[in-house]
Amino acid sequence: MAFQGKKLINDPNNVVTEYIEGLVETYPGLQYLDGFPEVKVVLRADVSSETHDKVAVISGGGSGHEPAQAGYVGEGMLTAAICGDVFASPPADSILAGIRAVTGPMGCLLIVTNYTGDRLNFGLAAEQAKAEGYKVETVIVGDDCALPPRRGIIGRRGLVGTILVNKVAGAAAAAGLSLADVAAEAKRASEVIGTMGVALSVCTLPGLVTSDRLGPEKIELGLGIHGEPGAAVADLQPVDVIISHVLQQILSTETGYVPITRGNRVVLMVNGLGATPVMELMIAAGKAVPKLQLEHGLAVDRVYTGSFMTSLDMAGFSITIMKSDESILQRLDAATKAPYWPVAVDGNRPPAKIPIPMPLSRSAKSDESLRRPLKLTQQGYLLEMAVESASNAIIGLTDDLNDWDAKVGDGDCGSTMYKGATAILDDMKKHFPLNDAAETIGEIGSSIRRVMGGTSGIIYVIMCKAASARLKAYSLADITAKRWAEALEAAITAVSKYGGASAGYRTLLDALIPAAEVLKERLDAGDDPVTAFVLSSEAAVAGAESTKHMQAQAGRSSYVSEDLLASAPDPGAMAAAYWYRAAALAVKDNYKVV
Amino acid sequence: MAFQGKKLINDPNNVVTEYIEGLVETYPGLQYLDGFPEVKVVLRADVSSETHDKVAVISGGGSGHEPAQAGYVGEGMLTAAICGDVFASPPADSILAGIRAVTGPMGCLLIVTNYTGDRLNFGLAAEQAKAEGYKVETVIVGDDCALPPRRGIIGRRGLVGTILVNKVAGAAAAAGLSLADVAAEAKRASEVIGTMGVALSVCTLPGLVTSDRLGPEKIELGLGIHGEPGAAVADLQPVDVIISHVLQQILSTETGYVPITRGNRVVLMVNGLGATPVMELMIAAGKAVPKLQLEHGLAVDRVYTGSFMTSLDMAGFSITIMKSDESILQRLDAATKAPYWPVAVDGNRPPAKIPIPMPLSRSAKSDESLRRPLKLTQQGYLLEMAVESASNAIIGLTDDLNDWDAKVGDGDCGSTMYKGATAILDDMKKHFPLNDAAETIGEIGSSIRRVMGGTSGIIYVIMCKAASARLKAYSLADITAKRWAEALEAAITAVSKYGGASAGYRTLLDALIPAAEVLKERLDAGDDPVTAFVLSSEAAVAGAESTKHMQAQAGRSSYVSEDLLASAPDPGAMAAAYWYRAAALAVKDNYKVV
Repeated sequence: MAFQGKKLINDPNNVVTEYIEGLVETYPGLQYLDGFPEVKVVLRADVSSETHDKVAVISGGGSGHEPAQAGYVGEGMLTAAICGDVFASPPADSILAGIRAVTGPMGCLLIVTNYTGDRLNFGLAAEQAKAEGYKVETVIVGDDCALPPRRGIIGRRGLVGTILVNKVAGAAAAAGLSLADVAAEAKRASEVIGTMGVALSVCTLPGLVTSDRLGPEKIELGLGIHGEPGAAVADLQPVDVIISHVLQQILSTETGYVPITRGNRVVLMVNGLGATPVMELMIAAGKAVPKLQLEHGLAVDRVYTGSFMTSLDMAGFSITIMKSDESILQRLDAATKAPYWPVAVDGNRPPAKIPIPMPLSRSAKSDESLRRPLKLTQQGYLLEMAVESASNAIIGLTDDLNDWDAKVGDGDCGSTMYKGATAILDDMKKHFPLNDAAETIGEIGSSIRRVMGGTSGIIYVIMCKAASARLKAYSLADITAKRWAEALEAAITAVSKYGGASAGYRTLLDALIPAAEVLKERLDAGDDPVTAFVLSSEAAVAGAESTKHMQAQAGRSSYVSEDLLASAPDPGAMAAAYWYRAAALAVKDNYKVV
Repeated sequence: MAFQGKKLINDPNNVVTEYIEGLVETYPGLQYLDGFPEVKVVLRADVSSETHDKVAVISGGGSGHEPAQAGYVGEGMLTAAICGDVFASPPADSILAGIRAVTGPMGCLLIVTNYTGDRLNFGLAAEQAKAEGYKVETVIVGDDCALPPRRGIIGRRGLVGTILVNKVAGAAAAAGLSLADVAAEAKRASEVIGTMGVALSVCTLPGLVTSDRLGPEKIELGLGIHGEPGAAVADLQPVDVIISHVLQQILSTETGYVPITRGNRVVLMVNGLGATPVMELMIAAGKAVPKLQLEHGLAVDRVYTGSFMTSLDMAGFSITIMKSDESILQRLDAATKAPYWPVAVDGNRPPAKIPIPMPLSRSAKSDESLRRPLKLTQQGYLLEMAVESASNAIIGLTDDLNDWDAKVGDGDCGSTMYKGATAILDDMKKHFPLNDAAETIGEIGSSIRRVMGGTSGIIYVIMCKAASARLKAYSLADITAKRWAEALEAAITAVSKYGGASAGYRTLLDALIPAAEVLKERLDAGDDPVTAFVLSSEAAVAGAESTKHMQAQAGRSSYVSEDLLASAPDPGAMAAAYWYRAAALAVKDNYKVV
C-alpha cells in the first residue's frame, strides 16, 4: 500500500466510499444509496421520491472538495449530492439514481459546476430522467474570474460560488416554489458571483506523491480546485497585498466578470482550500471587508469564512464576491439542516469592539484607602512589623536561595524573591493601608505582581489575593488569629487548586501546609495566638527542610534526578518557611496584650 | 518580513488580533474588548454584565487552536473567550477584563485547560475577581490519555475534550442553573472524557521555519497541541490500525483514564489538528464507530467530526471518547448560537443506506417493447433504412475520420464512431422496437453508451435521449417530419446546453445546426418531407466542411494552432454530416407516398 502522500486513509481506491460512511455516521440526517462502489449518492434521510412535495435540489461532482457537496445535503439546501471519484465527474447512472431517489412530482433542479465531464454526465442523466417522465432543470455555475474572459467555454470554472447557488436554490425549494422559479433564482444567483483562488501549495491525491511545483517562496494566483496550475505565479506577499490583487481582479470593470459596481451590496465568502487554518482565513476576511467597503465602495451584507469547497490538502484560499439584495439575503439566511452551511452569520452587526469594563465600584480603591494611615492601630503596627521582618528575612536569604536553586532549578529563586521583598518594603512605606489587613495583603500581592515574573511570582500573587478575599469577609475588628489561620488556608487551597501541587510535591506548600495545620491545631487547643504562630513557624521550617528527601512532582525540578535533589531543599519551600518564621518572631516581639 | 512558514498573514506579531477582527466581521453575534494588543477577549455581543441573568461561562488559553475557544462563544455555550498569544496563556489582566465584561449576579465559571500557565493566570484572575465581589468557580480539564498515568500533575493535558465541557456548561448555564450546579456539571463532564492525538506533521508557528522532525514515513502518537513531541513515534499505518491503537489506549482498563466499560454509552469526537481534510476525518470517524461498537461493546450516541481544536497547520487528528447519558446528551444537543459547535449531529439514526431506486414504472421497458416487431410499419421500415445507411456511412468513413482527427485531435474519432455504428447495427437486428420511433432513438443512445467512451460518446447519448424524450410527447401516428425536426432541435439544444458549444465552435453542431435550420425552413415553406430532409443534409455537409476555417473553442482542438486546424475539417462535424446525409438519402430512396 502506498502512503507517499502521508494521509490518514486505508486503501486510496476506497477513500470516497469510506468518507461517505463516516459522514453518515456523523450526521443522522443523511443516508446513502446502497450502490458502492459505483453509485456514491448522499441524500436526505427524511425524503423519499414518493412523498417529496418540494422541488429536489441536486448537485455533485468529483470528490476531493469536501465538505462539498455531500456536506450541504439537508432540509433547506441540497436534497441529494452525487459524488464522483477524487477529481472525477460522477457517472450519469449515479446521477440518475440520485434523481430517482429524491424527485417527486415537483421535479428536480441539477446544479452543475462548469466542467465538461460534469456538464455532460449531469446532462445525460437529466435527459434520461426527462425521458422517464421526471421534470428536470439544470443550472451550470462558472464563477471563476482567474482566466481571461471569453477563452472559450472552458474559461469560467465552477468554484465555491456553487455553494451559494446551492443555498439560494435550496431555500427557494424549501419555500415551496415551482421548479421553474427555483431554477430561475439559481440561475440569477449564478450570474452575480465571482471567485478567485490563491494557492500556497499543491494538493496531494490519495496514494500519489506530492509535487512541490511552487517551492518555498511562491504562490499561484487563479488556481483551479483540482490542482490545475494557476493563471500566474507570484512571490509570497503579506495577505493584505494578495487580497487587494484578488478583489481587483474579481471586480474589474474591464473584464466585467460580475455585474457589481460602486454602491452595490455584496456578500463575501473566504474559502479555505483544505489545509489553511481558520486563523489565516479569518485574517483574510478581516482584511477583505474594509477593502471592499473603502476601496471598492461596496456594502458588505454577510461574511462567510471557512473551508466550504476544498482541494484535498491544498494550502490557500479563494475569495468570492456575490452581488446581494433582500431576496438573495433571505435565501442565504433561511434556516437549513445542511451540516456545513455556516451558522450565526446573519443578523445585525453591532459595533465590533466595546470598551474594557472598569472594576465594579464596590471594590474600586479610593485614594483614601490606598494611603498609609497617619496613625497605626495595634493590628496595623503588628502587621507592619511582620511584613518588614518577613521581607528582610528574604533579602538576607537571597544567596542561599540562589545556591539551592542552582542545584535543582535555574538558580534565580533568591534574586526573584529579593525583587519581591524590596518592592514590598518600598510600597509599604508609601501606600499600604496597614490598619486594613485584607487590603494590605492584597497590596502585597500587587507589589509582587509588579516586579516578580515567572511561576513563583504568580503563585504568591494568587496566595495574597485568596487570603485577602478571605479576610475581607470579616470586619476589621473581627480579624483574629483564627481569621488569619483561615486566610492562610484559603491561600494554600488556591495555590494547590490552580498550581496543581499538594503536600509532598516538593514545593512551597511543604512549608505552608504543616504551618497551617499546626496553627489551626494550636488555636483550637486554646493556645494563645503568639505561641500558636511561633509553633507553626517551626513546623514550616521543618517541612521545608524535609523537601530534601522528596521527589519533585511539579515545576522545573520534576526533570531533575533524585540524587541531585537530595543535595538541597526546595528553595521555594525554604523561602516560604523563612519569611513565615520571621513574621512569627516579629509578632512575638511586638505583641502586647491589650 | 519573514514568511518562512508560508502563511497567509501580515505581521506574525499581529496574527491573533487580526484573527479576532476577521472573526467578528464574520459573526455579528460576537464582539471584542477594545484592548488590543494586550487584552484579546471575544464575547457575546448580546450580553453585558449589567443585564446578564445567567451564569457566565468563560474559557480561553493560548491561540493557534482556532476555532477554539473564540469560535465557541455564543448563546448556549461560552459567554466569553480569552485569547493569549500563539501557544501562550493569556495574562490574568485579560481574563479579569473578560470576567468583568460578562459576569452578572449569577457569577461565572472558568473552564481552564490543564497547563501551568493557564491554571495560574486563570487562577489569579479568579481570585482577583472574587476579591472584587464576583462569584467565580473554576473547572480544570485534563483529558489527555497519551502519557503514563500519575506522571505528576503535568500528566493530563487539556485537549479538545475541553470543547465538550464548554458545551455542557454553556447549556447548563443557558438553562438557568446556579453557578454551583453549572460548575458541578462541568466537573462531572470533565471526569468522563479521554483524548489521544496522532500527528502526521509538525505545526509551523507564524514567522518561524517549519521543522520536519517526523520525516516522510513516521507519525507521532500522543502529541500535544503545541507541537510538543508525542509520547511515541511509529510508522505510518492505515488509519484503521491507528484508530484501533488509539481507542485501546484511551479505553485501557489498566490505566483507567476514563470510567468507561463495556455496555456503556459514549460520544465520539474526531478532531482535525488543522491541516487534515474533512475526507480523512470522516474516514477515521467511519472506522472508529464500528470498532467502538463491536470491539469495545459501547453504544455510540453521537459522533462529532471536524476541526474543533487545532494546532495551527498540523496534519493529524485526535480521538475523544466521552461517557454519555441522557443528561449529558441533553446538554450536548441543546441549541447554541456558537458558530463552530457542529450542527445536525443529534437525532435518531436511520439506516445508513437505502436501496437504489428502480426507474419509475411508467417508463420501465417491458419485454414486449424491446423486441424487434414482427411486421414493420411504413414508418418503421423507413427508420430501419435510415439507421442502417447512416451506420454504414460511418463505417465507410472510419479511416478518413481517423486521419482528420490525427491532425487536430488524438486520432481515434473514426475508430470510436465505428464502434458505435456496428453496435447500433447489431442491436437493431435484435431488439430495436422500430415501429416506435421514440423508443428506437432512445435505444440507439443505449447502444452508443454501451460501447463508445469519451466525450463524443456521451454527447451522442445526450442527443438521442433528448430527441427520444421529444418524440415521446406525441402519439405514434402523430410523428411527422415536423416532429422529427423538433426532435433534432431538442438534441442540438441539449448538447449545446450541457456541452457548452454553439455554432462556430468547430464541433458536430456546425453540421447539425445548419441542417436543423434548413429542415425547419423548408418544411415551413411547404416542401415535401423528403426534399426538405435531403436539402438539409446538403447544409449539414457544407457546414461540416466549413469547420476547416474555424478556431476551436471547445474540446481538445482548442489547444491546437490555427494553421494546423486549417488542414482538416472537424472530424466530429464530418461524421455527423455524413451519417445525416446517408439517412436522408435512404429515406428518399425508400419513401412511398401512402
